[in-house]
Amino acid sequence: MPARLQFGTSEIDANLLYATKFAAPDPILLLEKGKRKTLVVRDLELGRARKEAAVNRVLGFAELEEQMRKQGGAQNQKLADYAHQLLKSSRVRAVVVPNSFPAGLLEGLRKRKIRVRVSEKPLYPERASKQPWEIGEIRRVERATEAALAKAIALLKSAHVEGRRVKKGSRIVTSEWLKQVMHEELLRRNCAAEHTIAACGEQAIEPHSEGEGHVVPNLPIVLDLFPRSQKSGYYADLTRTVVKGKASPEIKRMYSAVKEAQALAFSKLRAGVEGKRVHQAVVEYFKQKGFETSHKGSTQKGFTHATGHGVGLEIHEEPRIGRTGGPLQVNSIVTVEPGLYYKGVGGVRLEDLALVKRGGAINLTRLPKVLEV
Amino acid sequence: MPARLQFGTSEIDANLLYATKFAAPDPILLLEKGKRKTLVVRDLELGRARKEAAVNRVLGFAELEEQMRKQGGAQNQKLADYAHQLLKSSRVRAVVVPNSFPAGLLEGLRKRKIRVRVSEKPLYPERASKQPWEIGEIRRVERATEAALAKAIALLKSAHVEGRRVKKGSRIVTSEWLKQVMHEELLRRNCAAEHTIAACGEQAIEPHSEGEGHVVPNLPIVLDLFPRSQKSGYYADLTRTVVKGKASPEIKRMYSAVKEAQALAFSKLRAGVEGKRVHQAVVEYFKQKGFETSHKGSTQKGFTHATGHGVGLEIHEEPRIGRTGGPLQVNSIVTVEPGLYYKGVGGVRLEDLALVKRGGAINLTRLPKVLEV
Repeated sequence: MPARLQFGTSEIDANLLYATKFAAPDPILLLEKGKRKTLVVRDLELGRARKEAAVNRVLGFAELEEQMRKQGGAQNQKLADYAHQLLKSSRVRAVVVPNSFPAGLLEGLRKRKIRVRVSEKPLYPERASKQPWEIGEIRRVERATEAALAKAIALLKSAHVEGRRVKKGSRIVTSEWLKQVMHEELLRRNCAAEHTIAACGEQAIEPHSEGEGHVVPNLPIVLDLFPRSQKSGYYADLTRTVVKGKASPEIKRMYSAVKEAQALAFSKLRAGVEGKRVHQAVVEYFKQKGFETSHKGSTQKGFTHATGHGVGLEIHEEPRIGRTGGPLQVNSIVTVEPGLYYKGVGGVRLEDLALVKRGGAINLTRLPKVLEV
Repeated sequence: MPARLQFGTSEIDANLLYATKFAAPDPILLLEKGKRKTLVVRDLELGRARKEAAVNRVLGFAELEEQMRKQGGAQNQKLADYAHQLLKSSRVRAVVVPNSFPAGLLEGLRKRKIRVRVSEKPLYPERASKQPWEIGEIRRVERATEAALAKAIALLKSAHVEGRRVKKGSRIVTSEWLKQVMHEELLRRNCAAEHTIAACGEQAIEPHSEGEGHVVPNLPIVLDLFPRSQKSGYYADLTRTVVKGKASPEIKRMYSAVKEAQALAFSKLRAGVEGKRVHQAVVEYFKQKGFETSHKGSTQKGFTHATGHGVGLEIHEEPRIGRTGGPLQVNSIVTVEPGLYYKGVGGVRLEDLALVKRGGAINLTRLPKVLEV
């Protein structure tokens, strides 16, 4: 296998974090030649990298600069010069780089006579099958996520309905407050979430809309939380839909269909099954139950998104359970999150985390599903 | 000017966020042809994008797919097919892409006969000079940052020294607790920070080390916080160093040198000055004061990092005030953060935020500098 070269910020580049176990806020270079990994980091990160990175050798950019200077290199080197020097000193003339490799560096290396091939496949396909310690990490984050979401539900439970408002004591319950109590609980558990959703009624019709302002009684509130461990970088993902007060018959019908669809998807999950088959089953189920779907721009309605996605060092990763999902693997961790959205009614989504096994799937989520709170 | 094409997740790709004002958690495509911007987003983001994005036209990927189908395109299109369709339908045959453009897409477009040039320069050099509303945003985040850091200092002030521990009541004050009170305050102000530093004594010697465990009396504690507004995506950056108890004469000497160095750097800031000159002045100052610096691996000591960096939609952006910084511009916002680090003593760093003007710089930071608390 040819050597692999990567460049990026491991904090946001999951492949680099996966390969190095070193979360850096600044860009790093990684060369893998056979099983040997050489990592180049900013000089002020050297000590931490040597302690934390799961690699064979750690260099600072200053050391590469020193090597270039000794060989008569010019001042003011460019990134491609550093990468070139790293390859030269490791006797590497041809590399494979990931799809996401920066185009500027690709061209810079080619100008310097390095043969670079862009891999069309994932660099670490093994990421789609979690190792035991990764499963442990994701379970831990899922526990924190459940605790956080339970806080939001507890706030709603302890509140009361007053006309068109939900109030706790004299204070109006808002989307912002619900997010606040969830985020505070996450903070206590060393996790952090962005784009948390607490969206009520019409606000929830767009599945990514985060929600704002006061929540309304008797309408579905979608609570969707996908935090990341501040330590390991692993994610979890969880959604519940609740109504403060009384749900209409229509909402109840949607809720029970979504719950059924989720159970149906779970029943299909096992290693080897293609994600798109699982998704198709959910699509068919909703259709058969009379829940119409349209994907067209302003008339979007029904089941408008995918059934699920892999979760790991990225919030959305392989395998996919949507229109184009390939085979699930043993120890894939995926979300199962069917939803229905209709104007004038609102949105209902339920999302659990599943660990795929040979004969089926284990639900990693414990938080109960209750509509009226 | 040729058309510009970008692809990335605008939440973490500052150029895309700058150009669209639309923070998306999933990848988007942006084509700029003259002044006309066309944005392609995931279909479930269409509504939000049409509301929020500062572009002329928003498409969903499904619409591009529909176009391809009508033209007899195959099923299972690749990303490059979508980008190619976008260009075709806009009659664009040649594009400029940023340095960070994904190599896989670069090659895919070239295979489809699009001429692609990778820009060696920043796509939006104007990002280094902030517009009034950007200055307002960064000021707002800086206020939140100061409030958060003040909470940590208040906790230390209200604590007492008991032997080798700092305690508030019966509870030992730790790095984790200091970070917790800062993060809680940020949360209340709709900001979020990662990699916050609360590092005491030897822990602070590596400028990026985040600190853990109980803080020790009479040793410097470096508190460094760089949160991002959850709404606008703009950052601020602030560092204070404090001692709970009594600082040694050596620490006092370091502290006052760092404070002087910061004032010196401020006095050099104005539009047109090269960042590297400002940095050089700080380097010289420390040397002249007898504070030795070494950048070599395990013997790193002294002033081991840059004097500052631009702050905006990225925490580190242009202009730089380090070994290689170019000219500052009117309305550049930069950090000024000299520091000194010695084994057996600890670290001292002070960081304010400066707004560069024609004749000098305005300090955007109000939080006082007090060593002993």
